[in-house]
Amino acid sequence: MTMNRLPRIRDLQAGSAGYGFFLCAKKETRSGKNGEYLALVLQDVSGEVGAKVFQDVDALKQEFDAGEFVKVQGRGNSFNQRLELIVDKIRRVMPDKDAVDGFREEECIQCAPRPIGDMWAELTGRVDAITDPHIRALVDRLLVQHEERLRIWPAAKEVHHAYRGGLLEHILKISEIALYLADAYGAKRDVVFAGVLLHDIGKLRELTYDITTGYSVEGNLVGHIVIGVGLLRDAVRDLPGFPPDMLLELEHLILSHHGAREMGSPVLPMTMEAFILAASDDLDAKIHQVRRAFAEDDSDGAFTSYHKRLGRVLYKPSGS
Amino acid sequence: MTMNRLPRIRDLQAGSAGYGFFLCAKKETRSGKNGEYLALVLQDVSGEVGAKVFQDVDALKQEFDAGEFVKVQGRGNSFNQRLELIVDKIRRVMPDKDAVDGFREEECIQCAPRPIGDMWAELTGRVDAITDPHIRALVDRLLVQHEERLRIWPAAKEVHHAYRGGLLEHILKISEIALYLADAYGAKRDVVFAGVLLHDIGKLRELTYDITTGYSVEGNLVGHIVIGVGLLRDAVRDLPGFPPDMLLELEHLILSHHGAREMGSPVLPMTMEAFILAASDDLDAKIHQVRRAFAEDDSDGAFTSYHKRLGRVLYKPSGS
Amino acid sequence: MTMNRLPRIRDLQAGSAGYGFFLCAKKETRSGKNGEYLALVLQDVSGEVGAKVFQDVDALKQEFDAGEFVKVQGRGNSFNQRLELIVDKIRRVMPDKDAVDGFREEECIQCAPRPIGDMWAELTGRVDAITDPHIRALVDRLLVQHEERLRIWPAAKEVHHAYRGGLLEHILKISEIALYLADAYGAKRDVVFAGVLLHDIGKLRELTYDITTGYSVEGNLVGHIVIGVGLLRDAVRDLPGFPPDMLLELEHLILSHHGAREMGSPVLPMTMEAFILAASDDLDAKIHQVRRAFAEDDSDGAFTSYHKRLGRVLYKPSGS
Amino acid sequence: MTMNRLPRIRDLQAGSAGYGFFLCAKKETRSGKNGEYLALVLQDVSGEVGAKVFQDVDALKQEFDAGEFVKVQGRGNSFNQRLELIVDKIRRVMPDKDAVDGFREEECIQCAPRPIGDMWAELTGRVDAITDPHIRALVDRLLVQHEERLRIWPAAKEVHHAYRGGLLEHILKISEIALYLADAYGAKRDVVFAGVLLHDIGKLRELTYDITTGYSVEGNLVGHIVIGVGLLRDAVRDLPGFPPDMLLELEHLILSHHGAREMGSPVLPMTMEAFILAASDDLDAKIHQVRRAFAEDDSDGAFTSYHKRLGRVLYKPSGS
Amino acid sequence: MTMNRLPRIRDLQAGSAGYGFFLCAKKETRSGKNGEYLALVLQDVSGEVGAKVFQDVDALKQEFDAGEFVKVQGRGNSFNQRLELIVDKIRRVMPDKDAVDGFREEECIQCAPRPIGDMWAELTGRVDAITDPHIRALVDRLLVQHEERLRIWPAAKEVHHAYRGGLLEHILKISEIALYLADAYGAKRDVVFAGVLLHDIGKLRELTYDITTGYSVEGNLVGHIVIGVGLLRDAVRDLPGFPPDMLLELEHLILSHHGAREMGSPVLPMTMEAFILAASDDLDAKIHQVRRAFAEDDSDGAFTSYHKRLGRVLYKPSGS
Amino acid sequence: MTMNRLPRIRDLQAGSAGYGFFLCAKKETRSGKNGEYLALVLQDVSGEVGAKVFQDVDALKQEFDAGEFVKVQGRGNSFNQRLELIVDKIRRVMPDKDAVDGFREEECIQCAPRPIGDMWAELTGRVDAITDPHIRALVDRLLVQHEERLRIWPAAKEVHHAYRGGLLEHILKISEIALYLADAYGAKRDVVFAGVLLHDIGKLRELTYDITTGYSVEGNLVGHIVIGVGLLRDAVRDLPGFPPDMLLELEHLILSHHGAREMGSPVLPMTMEAFILAASDDLDAKIHQVRRAFAEDDSDGAFTSYHKRLGRVLYKPSGS
Repeated sequence: MTMNRLPRIRDLQAGSAGYGFFLCAKKETRSGKNGEYLALVLQDVSGEVGAKVFQDVDALKQEFDAGEFVKVQGRGNSFNQRLELIVDKIRRVMPDKDAVDGFREEECIQCAPRPIGDMWAELTGRVDAITDPHIRALVDRLLVQHEERLRIWPAAKEVHHAYRGGLLEHILKISEIALYLADAYGAKRDVVFAGVLLHDIGKLRELTYDITTGYSVEGNLVGHIVIGVGLLRDAVRDLPGFPPDMLLELEHLILSHHGAREMGSPVLPMTMEAFILAASDDLDAKIHQVRRAFAEDDSDGAFTSYHKRLGRVLYKPSGS
Repeated sequence: MTMNRLPRIRDLQAGSAGYGFFLCAKKETRSGKNGEYLALVLQDVSGEVGAKVFQDVDALKQEFDAGEFVKVQGRGNSFNQRLELIVDKIRRVMPDKDAVDGFREEECIQCAPRPIGDMWAELTGRVDAITDPHIRALVDRLLVQHEERLRIWPAAKEVHHAYRGGLLEHILKISEIALYLADAYGAKRDVVFAGVLLHDIGKLRELTYDITTGYSVEGNLVGHIVIGVGLLRDAVRDLPGFPPDMLLELEHLILSHHGAREMGSPVLPMTMEAFILAASDDLDAKIHQVRRAFAEDDSDGAFTSYHKRLGRVLYKPSGS
Repeated sequence: MTMNRLPRIRDLQAGSAGYGFFLCAKKETRSGKNGEYLALVLQDVSGEVGAKVFQDVDALKQEFDAGEFVKVQGRGNSFNQRLELIVDKIRRVMPDKDAVDGFREEECIQCAPRPIGDMWAELTGRVDAITDPHIRALVDRLLVQHEERLRIWPAAKEVHHAYRGGLLEHILKISEIALYLADAYGAKRDVVFAGVLLHDIGKLRELTYDITTGYSVEGNLVGHIVIGVGLLRDAVRDLPGFPPDMLLELEHLILSHHGAREMGSPVLPMTMEAFILAASDDLDAKIHQVRRAFAEDDSDGAFTSYHKRLGRVLYKPSGS
Repeated sequence: MTMNRLPRIRDLQAGSAGYGFFLCAKKETRSGKNGEYLALVLQDVSGEVGAKVFQDVDALKQEFDAGEFVKVQGRGNSFNQRLELIVDKIRRVMPDKDAVDGFREEECIQCAPRPIGDMWAELTGRVDAITDPHIRALVDRLLVQHEERLRIWPAAKEVHHAYRGGLLEHILKISEIALYLADAYGAKRDVVFAGVLLHDIGKLRELTYDITTGYSVEGNLVGHIVIGVGLLRDAVRDLPGFPPDMLLELEHLILSHHGAREMGSPVLPMTMEAFILAASDDLDAKIHQVRRAFAEDDSDGAFTSYHKRLGRVLYKPSGS
Repeated sequence: MTMNRLPRIRDLQAGSAGYGFFLCAKKETRSGKNGEYLALVLQDVSGEVGAKVFQDVDALKQEFDAGEFVKVQGRGNSFNQRLELIVDKIRRVMPDKDAVDGFREEECIQCAPRPIGDMWAELTGRVDAITDPHIRALVDRLLVQHEERLRIWPAAKEVHHAYRGGLLEHILKISEIALYLADAYGAKRDVVFAGVLLHDIGKLRELTYDITTGYSVEGNLVGHIVIGVGLLRDAVRDLPGFPPDMLLELEHLILSHHGAREMGSPVLPMTMEAFILAASDDLDAKIHQVRRAFAEDDSDGAFTSYHKRLGRVLYKPSGS
Repeated sequence: MTMNRLPRIRDLQAGSAGYGFFLCAKKETRSGKNGEYLALVLQDVSGEVGAKVFQDVDALKQEFDAGEFVKVQGRGNSFNQRLELIVDKIRRVMPDKDAVDGFREEECIQCAPRPIGDMWAELTGRVDAITDPHIRALVDRLLVQHEERLRIWPAAKEVHHAYRGGLLEHILKISEIALYLADAYGAKRDVVFAGVLLHDIGKLRELTYDITTGYSVEGNLVGHIVIGVGLLRDAVRDLPGFPPDMLLELEHLILSHHGAREMGSPVLPMTMEAFILAASDDLDAKIHQVRRAFAEDDSDGAFTSYHKRLGRVLYKPSGS
């Protein structure tokens, strides 16, 4: 193998050549001009890229699977205006051995841009600012119960914040916005903050996450909104004296945060705090999609290609 | 006072005169040709009727309120093709004293057509037919916890089965249908029956019911679908060994039973049992509205007047 | 040719080899690694499978067409987790000659699971139970006029019951359900049964069916709902004394059975019988799609893949 | 009684006084400052007006009914910016006797602005221009069968052309437009004309019309679109040799003329002729509503009051 | 007349008596038990109240009109749980004479809660913080051109901020929010601020405002969104060197600020700034409606009455 | 190269061979049985055709681009029932040299069927018929300002009239229809004609057109409706004395011509002229799509293939 290390995926170019470690996110057999080949999608912390394997295809069919880390030797290629990776050699990673050559599992996984430690520190800082003792007790309890997952969970399978730490990143961004709006409109800060923390907490059980993201049985049958209400009630059960009306207000925040029945909220926002939470969540999800569309777009014109979920093209900021 | 007893409201005629006991469901002050009068809505077990009080209006303003039982002396009158009751005397019921004259609280309240005891016996009979031990234990638990309300609760504030025992009547009718459909399509009988019992159980807390029906705070903020999931989880918590997947299936039945997100179901039916429950519930609610429209319609033509909720007129069966 | 007979399509495996008789439902020319090949879809009574022909492609282009029965020699192959048939030899069936080797036209066509004779017997049994003489005369007339097609017609081109005998199967299943519901709600049994028989009768002219299914000119321009009303009126024209109001009620059942204008019903259900028919039809069509999705799904997880028409994934019953 | 004759309703003023003949379209008993009074709606050929009777109310309750012609003595009055008629005397018309004083039934009924004889002559003139012999035979047959009703029927109960001769007026206006469009786009003139004549022909049985307009049983249960297809098929049955494909095209024109399923068309326009018919019908109905809104509006500003069915205000042409 | 001055409308009680100055916002003649009476709606800076005049009704019909300031002598009365004002004397205000008794036009008009001078100062402060010279020049120009109206205009006829200074109040509140969001997401501050100032600027011509609010001809025919684009282009025409792309971005902000085509935006947000503006505007309008519903609600329960525009009841904060 | 000239694309057959000049509208690299090949779409004035290049693929990748005129030597071929062109040689056109061999740029571009000179003459003829002096002055001004683009612009990128001169063709066809409708309903002819000319005038800046059609930045961010209002205001600015109300009416015509908010019109038609314009535009666009679907369809049956935008199949006129 060549001694060169390939650059990160975001920096890959047509001239790049060398070896690298990636997560193999998809693997398919296709027919091409020289017979069958493997069409892969490889990921690292910086993004993802299509790859093709034309050699030893039959042997490689069994050699590794989608969802595994792989060591790859290859070179960047430009095909129909898109960059791809032509793979010369590929095998499953051998963790101990490959660590010597620079394999780090966390560098092969798409991840929130801020370090998780930093984000967790910001979260606990915000918790310290809570003044209502019941909400403080509730939030403490939730963090104790769910810290492990809250630190790393993605916020979605595909739409937005769909990577390691994405849920925490989303919670923090909405916290910032929603607390500001709470002050601006005289809504209850602590209730809003608890709502932000709780609104997607059901995703800790709706989504499965172990390198790749999927839906659990409960996720499909029940959905994160109602799972979240259950997690809230479970936490409150351990908190004697928690005011029943406050519990209802918090359940209402979770249930109404999609803002409309056809978006999956069985009740509509009926409190100022609920209006603020729904607006903050919706805006953050949309802005995240807009930014990602800008980042992923490599066309020449002033507009991105058509964004199916948003139902429009987007105007690229000049200078970006 | 005349010694005659007025007939039940459904049998009231223009010539009827005498005294009777009713629930005063509404009370308003209006302006008429001879000054202010009171416009009432009176109910008994057989139906409801508009009533007017033209005498002693000022005094009577304070004498009784909507939501109270009243003793009324008056006579039937036909006004613009509608039967009404002209009230000569009216006062709040004095329970002990008036019992002698025939006051029975239960006869003043709109009620399901079948006696509640009969309906409850049918329900427990259906419970005895359950073969799955976990579902049997769950249903037994629910009946112990909620018997008092399950016996008498209405199924809605207005739309359908909106009277004493209406929820139980609705549960039994859907049981009959849904179990037949379960057999017809090879779905799981016991799961379907549990779903029928559970689907509206949240209404025990969504609605307040004490002679008149309203919405609780939890009813508005959370809604009966998610309240119901909570009641199910509470019951299961006391049942060690209840299979987790079965719990999810039952939660799914409750959550999906409105059949569409815009109807308030946060998830869509994904199991045969869920399709059967949603179809049975929808049909029973609609047929109930159709029958009530037939019963309440007193026009001459072949069609009822326009039914706002159903968005159509209805064709009256000949001979009915 | 090898002497082995291939198993039925549903039982085909990667190791299977031999000859078989099939209906060629689709035939396309594609480009592959060794030049052009033919991509086929083959059907028999048990299901359908993709097939590929790599040899003698140019000659075979003219040798047979989609819509014809073919004799095939080939072997099962697993490609990208899907089973396919690699065809070594293929030719048009010679009915007399191939009958010796086991060719039976009816075994090459997708068909309802119950034998058509059994289904027809059930239908005539249900007809014998009609008590209203006018409806009995009408139904007898319809069966005389349309028996040939009613026995074998599919219920749809694609959505549900899309195979030989599918319409009859659908009619019988709805009969069972709808008559039960009619009894449960005190609706008119004979009217409901006539509605069940009539509701899709227009499909006998909307669809063309001769091994494969398509739309007739009248089917596209007029649609089965209004064709059905015409067939009803034609039948009644031969029945002097048929009550005009009963005819209107039956027309209404056909016209309203899709339950909503946006589903193609020009009028909404206005009678109890119409509500029952629309609910039964809708449920049977959905359950059929659910079962077929279960049967066709071969993934590992607890859920089927996304079902476009139903707009959701489905939860696979454990043990199935 | 004064000898003066009241002017027509459109010309009634606050100072008008005298007697007149009207159709009593509505009659209700209401409570007012001096006891009960009768609130009427009176119509003549020029429009309609509200009227009040304060005298002899009890006696007059039985004296005449809505739907009857009445002789009225009264005077114009302005109440809350609206003109009304204060009735001093009123009785049922005695046709023979009142004819002497000028009672003419046709002058008491709202009617299309053009004389019916003129309109019918225009229609037969258009029929003479048909060149296709089959369509000519069909149209002749339809006119023979339905002339009596076609001459006088309204086009709707409320929305547009809701008066005597309204359907004929609507047919003629659309003929003019749709034939022009047929020439402009090279569509088949005779087919378009037949479609115009046929598109609402079902209204001859959907609506009942005998001074006042209502819905027949068939109108509600089947609707004018499908009734119309039946009338077409009935007419064609008497025309041997009528081309089957032409019949389908004409059925398609009737069925698709509302242009969208949610508007009640079970199929969408699929021919140029169908697009032209649907567009012409829609425009004529809308323009008729616009003009009527202008005619009925008596406000000062530049816009009419909010038009519920059109969902907007309308800008009044200056000078009108 | 009594010498007492009535309290402001918000503080009016059943026992209040005296004189006051109000804007008469509505005036209708109605029939009551003692003959005709006048039903008025009176407003002052603190709110509005229903009023009734039973004396000298005929004379008063001409004495003043809706839209005029009136001097009223009367007393608070509670009728059917609502407070009303029984008027003993009423006449048009004589400005000079009544000024002596305390008449101040501005105290009779509903007005934003903050003094307009304060709000204007905040606005000019925000303008001073603009750093982009083109946007600064544009904003300066707009303020010079429109200061007179911008200071006092309402933001709507009915929905939200529908009072003197309401538009300015709305602009300032969105400024605060949207600039915070711009910073949070790295959007362009100055562009966002210009968008906030411009988004409803068309309302200066869409609405007429002279004590009462209405729609101009241009307002109905063109609408404030497109009027606003015109005002922007007019302002830029005087600013040589204004970057064309920046003009397009600002036009886009105005055009897309309703966020969806069915809400009247001909284009959808395509820039981060546009997403932020649309979200801020929507939230501020909703919160304003929520607060007003809280302020106006005087029922006993935990929920307001049904809010038609928002399509829900609202949960009243405890303690408010 | 062979001396034969290929026929126009519409007349190309499987046997055709020779050279020709085309616009290369698309160019992609694909993998085929003999390695990579180029898949092209070629256009001339009569239509477009798919083409494949199997020789010298690597060299040709750089030799020409989509959007350029090319000289092609090749032969017609029938592949899977579709005609395609197999290219033997291909190169960029050399305008001067190839003119000798018959290259005419205008013959390589899809174009309206009528010569542009004829259409322009018809337009100026219609202008001469204007009687209102203000509208005449406005239209003259618009023609002076925009003649160059108005003569050649397409009416859309894809949907309808998407070729050279398409906008002019569309304007003329609507003029014919809308003026007829104006007379039929007594609407203002000159206003209608101005509306027709103006309704899509914003497309002159919304679309970029230089052989191929695209969207400008302004087109995406602002849209042709609001661009059109700006062009109208610009023109009127030069016309002193233009009546302000007439300007508003014309702006309203542009803004409302899509007929519904969800179609991008920020206001709904409120004048008769606006109803007529919207109906004419909608019908012309639909008929154009219908005709094109007929022209492009080459299937055997009575119906075209499914038309996605219209959401239906279309019935092909017999004989066409």
